[in-house]
Amino acid sequence: MGRIESNLPNTPHFNPLNPREFRKQAHEMVDFIADYYQNIESYPVLSQVQPGYLRASLPQKAPSLPESLETILEDVKNQIIPGMTHWLSPNFFAFFPSTVSTAGFLGEMLCTCFNSVGFNWIASPAATELEMVVIDWLADMLKLPKSFMFQGTGGGVIQNTTSEAILVTLIAARDKALDVYGSGNLNKLVVYASDQTHSTFAKACKMVGISPRNIRLIPTTIDAGFSLSPVQLKAAVEADMADGLVPLYLCVTLGTTSTTAVDPIELLAGVAKEHGMWVHVDAAYAGSACICPEFRHHLNGVERVDSLSLSPHKWLLSGLDCCCLWVKNPTALVKALSTNPEYLRNKQSESDSVVDFKDWQVGTGRRFKSLRLWLIFRTYGVVNLQGHIRSDVGMAKIFEEFVRSDPRFEIVVPREFGLVCFRLNPDETFGSDYTELLNRKLLDWVNSTGRVYMTHTKVGGIYVLRFAVGATLTADNHVVAAWKLIKEGADALLKTV
Amino acid sequence: MGRIESNLPNTPHFNPLNPREFRKQAHEMVDFIADYYQNIESYPVLSQVQPGYLRASLPQKAPSLPESLETILEDVKNQIIPGMTHWLSPNFFAFFPSTVSTAGFLGEMLCTCFNSVGFNWIASPAATELEMVVIDWLADMLKLPKSFMFQGTGGGVIQNTTSEAILVTLIAARDKALDVYGSGNLNKLVVYASDQTHSTFAKACKMVGISPRNIRLIPTTIDAGFSLSPVQLKAAVEADMADGLVPLYLCVTLGTTSTTAVDPIELLAGVAKEHGMWVHVDAAYAGSACICPEFRHHLNGVERVDSLSLSPHKWLLSGLDCCCLWVKNPTALVKALSTNPEYLRNKQSESDSVVDFKDWQVGTGRRFKSLRLWLIFRTYGVVNLQGHIRSDVGMAKIFEEFVRSDPRFEIVVPREFGLVCFRLNPDETFGSDYTELLNRKLLDWVNSTGRVYMTHTKVGGIYVLRFAVGATLTADNHVVAAWKLIKEGADALLKTV
Repeated sequence: MGRIESNLPNTPHFNPLNPREFRKQAHEMVDFIADYYQNIESYPVLSQVQPGYLRASLPQKAPSLPESLETILEDVKNQIIPGMTHWLSPNFFAFFPSTVSTAGFLGEMLCTCFNSVGFNWIASPAATELEMVVIDWLADMLKLPKSFMFQGTGGGVIQNTTSEAILVTLIAARDKALDVYGSGNLNKLVVYASDQTHSTFAKACKMVGISPRNIRLIPTTIDAGFSLSPVQLKAAVEADMADGLVPLYLCVTLGTTSTTAVDPIELLAGVAKEHGMWVHVDAAYAGSACICPEFRHHLNGVERVDSLSLSPHKWLLSGLDCCCLWVKNPTALVKALSTNPEYLRNKQSESDSVVDFKDWQVGTGRRFKSLRLWLIFRTYGVVNLQGHIRSDVGMAKIFEEFVRSDPRFEIVVPREFGLVCFRLNPDETFGSDYTELLNRKLLDWVNSTGRVYMTHTKVGGIYVLRFAVGATLTADNHVVAAWKLIKEGADALLKTV
Repeated sequence: MGRIESNLPNTPHFNPLNPREFRKQAHEMVDFIADYYQNIESYPVLSQVQPGYLRASLPQKAPSLPESLETILEDVKNQIIPGMTHWLSPNFFAFFPSTVSTAGFLGEMLCTCFNSVGFNWIASPAATELEMVVIDWLADMLKLPKSFMFQGTGGGVIQNTTSEAILVTLIAARDKALDVYGSGNLNKLVVYASDQTHSTFAKACKMVGISPRNIRLIPTTIDAGFSLSPVQLKAAVEADMADGLVPLYLCVTLGTTSTTAVDPIELLAGVAKEHGMWVHVDAAYAGSACICPEFRHHLNGVERVDSLSLSPHKWLLSGLDCCCLWVKNPTALVKALSTNPEYLRNKQSESDSVVDFKDWQVGTGRRFKSLRLWLIFRTYGVVNLQGHIRSDVGMAKIFEEFVRSDPRFEIVVPREFGLVCFRLNPDETFGSDYTELLNRKLLDWVNSTGRVYMTHTKVGGIYVLRFAVGATLTADNHVVAAWKLIKEGADALLKTV
C-alpha cells in the first residue's frame, strides 16, 4: 500500500494486511474451521464427485472486483467441501494418515504470521536456531546417537517430504562418489533398495541421473515379511562389483508403504558399509513409533547409517508438509548443495559461525516450520505423544482381532504398527483371481458408502486391503463401526457368490 | 485418540484436536498475531542477536509433560521475536519482499484445516481441480497464450519454489534429449543462462547431473542493463555445437535478483528454438507485474517458450511458499516424473480423465495451496492486485527520485519495477575500492539501527545497495523515513572522510 499513489484519483485505497480487518476475518475463519471439525463426520470421507465437477462450475477468469469473505466461505461449503476427501475424518483409514493437532495448527499460524524466508541465518536467526533445537529434541526422543545431532557432530533439517530427503542425500552420495571415480562415471553407480521401497526412491534416482538399469529393487517375499534380505543385498552388490559397477546408495525402509515391513538396519548397513555405500533410512511413517521404548529396537544399527528421514506429518501431528532429515556428515550435503551468490553474502555466513539451511535443501527460500514441532512437543509433551502412538497401535490391534475372529477374513502379513493388511478369503478353492475380484468389489462398496475410506495394495501377488489407523480424530467407536461396515459388505457380497 | 486405550490406568486422555479447545486456542492465536502486526514497527527489522543466542537459552530436550499455550506464547515474545528478521515489517527493503495478505493467511488456514494430501485426484478432487482453475486464472491475468492453460493445450502446477520449477523442467528437457541422443550422452548436454541468473539455476543443473563444465553463464554488461544478449547466446551455442555438444536448456530471467534485469524473451527464444532447446522463463519476482498492461510487454515472445515460473509469494500476496509453473507440454513433465505404485492406483487415474499432480513435481504429498490464491484473487479482485503492483512501483519511483536529487548518490542501473539499485558515490576520485568500503559502512550502519533493512549486491564489479520496495505494510512514510536514515548515515560517514 502506498499512500501517495493510493490517493490518486480512481485508485482505491488498498491495504491487504490491515490488522483490524485481519483480526475480524481470522476470527471468522477460526469459527468456520472449528465448525468443520465438529461436523466432519457428516461428510462422506471419500469424495463422491466426478472428474471435472469443480472446473465446470467455477468462472473461467478471476473476478475484477473484490468479493466478500462470506461469499467465499459459502463457496467453500458448497463447492469445495463436497469435493474433498476428508483426510481428517475419523473414518479415514486410507494410505497412511496425515495427522494434525491444535498445537500444529497454531504453530503453522505463527509460521504464516512471520512469513520469514530463512534461507540463511541472518534472514531469520530464530528460524534457523529453533529448527536446530527441535530437530535435536526429536533426535533425542528417538534415541539417535549424538553423531546425528547438532549437540554432537551431525545435524538435521526439515525438508518438505521424504522425496526431497532422499533426493538431497542421493546427490551428496553421488557427488562424493564422482569425486573419487571421476565425473564421467555416473553410469557406473548403482543404488539398492527392496521392491517394497516407496516409488519416490526410483523417481529420485532417475532425477539425479542414475540410469534405471542401475536401480536394483531387490525382490522380497511374504515369508520374510517383505523385508529386504541382507543375503540378497550382498549377492546383488557382489554381482555388480564383479561387473565393474560401483555400489553407491542403499535405501533401507522402516515401515514400507504397502505393509509396514521393516528392513533390518544393522545387518543391511553391515553389508553396505563393507563397500563404502551411503545408507539412508526412510522411516517416514513408522519412525515416529520409535519414540516409544517398545518400538525403538527397529532403529537398532542406526549408528552405522549416513542419514535418516522421518515425517512428523504422518504420525507426529504436525500437518503437511514436514519431513525431518538427519545426516551424520552435513559437510557432504552442504558441499553438494551450497551456493554463495553475492546478494546473499553476510558476515555471519562467511564467518562459518552459523548454519545456512539453504545449503541443506533443494530450494533457496524456506518457511519457519520448526514452530509447528516446537508447539507440538511443548503443548503435548513426550508422554502424550507416546500415548498417542500407543493408542493408534491399540486401535489397530482391536481391528486385527476383529479380522482374526471372522473366518471369512485373513490377516495377510503380521501387524506391527497402526496398519492392518487383510483380505476377504472365504474359500481357498475360489482361486486368486476371483478372490482378488471379491476384495476389489468389497473395497469399492465400502468406499462408495462415504462412511469409511480404505485403500489397497498388492504384495507377493496378493491383492490386500489396507486399514491404516491413526487419523487424529479416530477413536475406538470408529474402528468398531468400520469393521461392522466391512462385514456388512462381505455379507452382501458373499450372498451373491 | 482411542477411548479404550485412553481409559487404561495411568494413560491420560489425549485428544490433540478437540474442536472446543481448537476454537479457544486458535482465537487466542489470532489475537496474538493481530497484535504482532499492530506492533511490528516497534521491533528492529533486522534481528540484532548473535549466533547461538537461542540454542543457548532453550532446553536440550523436549519436555515430558505438557506446557500451557500462555507459557509458549510468552516464549515466542521473549525468545523468538527478538531473533526474527521481520520480513513483514514495513521497514523491510532487503532481498525481494515476500508478501502476505489477510486473504492469503485465511487461505493458508483453510489449507491447514483440510490437511489434504492431494498427490492424485481421488485423494482430494477439489484440491486438484481448484489448482487447475486458479492457475488458469493467473495465466489469463498474465495474458499467457492458451498453449499454457488447461483451458488450452498446456497447464500449470504450484511448486514450492522456483528451484523446483527449474529442477523439474530441466529433468523433463534432459530426459527428452537423452531419449534422442542416448542415455550415455549426459555429458554432452549444455545449458545456458546469464551470469545474473539466480544461483539456484546452476545448483539445479548440478543436481540433475549436468557437469559444471557444461553450464554457460554468459557474461552481461552494465551497458546492456545486465540483460542476456541474444548475439552472445548464439555465439556460445554455435561454439558448443562445433565442439560436438548438444544445447539443452536456456533459462531466461524476467527480473534478475541483483538488479531486476529483463532478458529479451522473444529474441532469445528465437536463437534457442533454432537448436531445439527447452526455454524456461524465470519470472519469480517481476512476472507478477505483468498482470498490469503497462508491464505485459516484458512477456512478449512467451508463446515461443516451453515453460514459465512465477512466485506469487514474492509480489502477489500469497505468503511462502507458492511458485506457479506453466508448461506447454505437460506430457514431457509427466513422462519424466510419473510413478504408478499399486498403493496409489485408482479408476480415475487409470482412465486418464484426471490430472495427478504428483507427476508434475518432485515429491508425492502436496498441500492444498491453491486455496490461498483463490482467496486472494477473489477477495481483492484483479483491479486491486494491479493497484498493489503500481503502488509499490510508485513508491520505488519516489525513492529513486530522492536518490537522484542528492548528488552524493547515484542510481547504478535504471529502475524498472520495485527495486532501486543505487550507491553512495560522492567523489569519483575516491577509486572503486574506497567507494565500496563507504557503501559497506553505510549499509552496516543503516542495518545496525534496526530501523531499516536493506541488502547489497555486486554487478559489473560495482558494489550496489538494493532498496526493494514491496513489503505488504510499507507506505510512503516508510520510504521517506528510510531515505532520511540513509542520508543521515551518509552525512556522518562523509564527515569522517
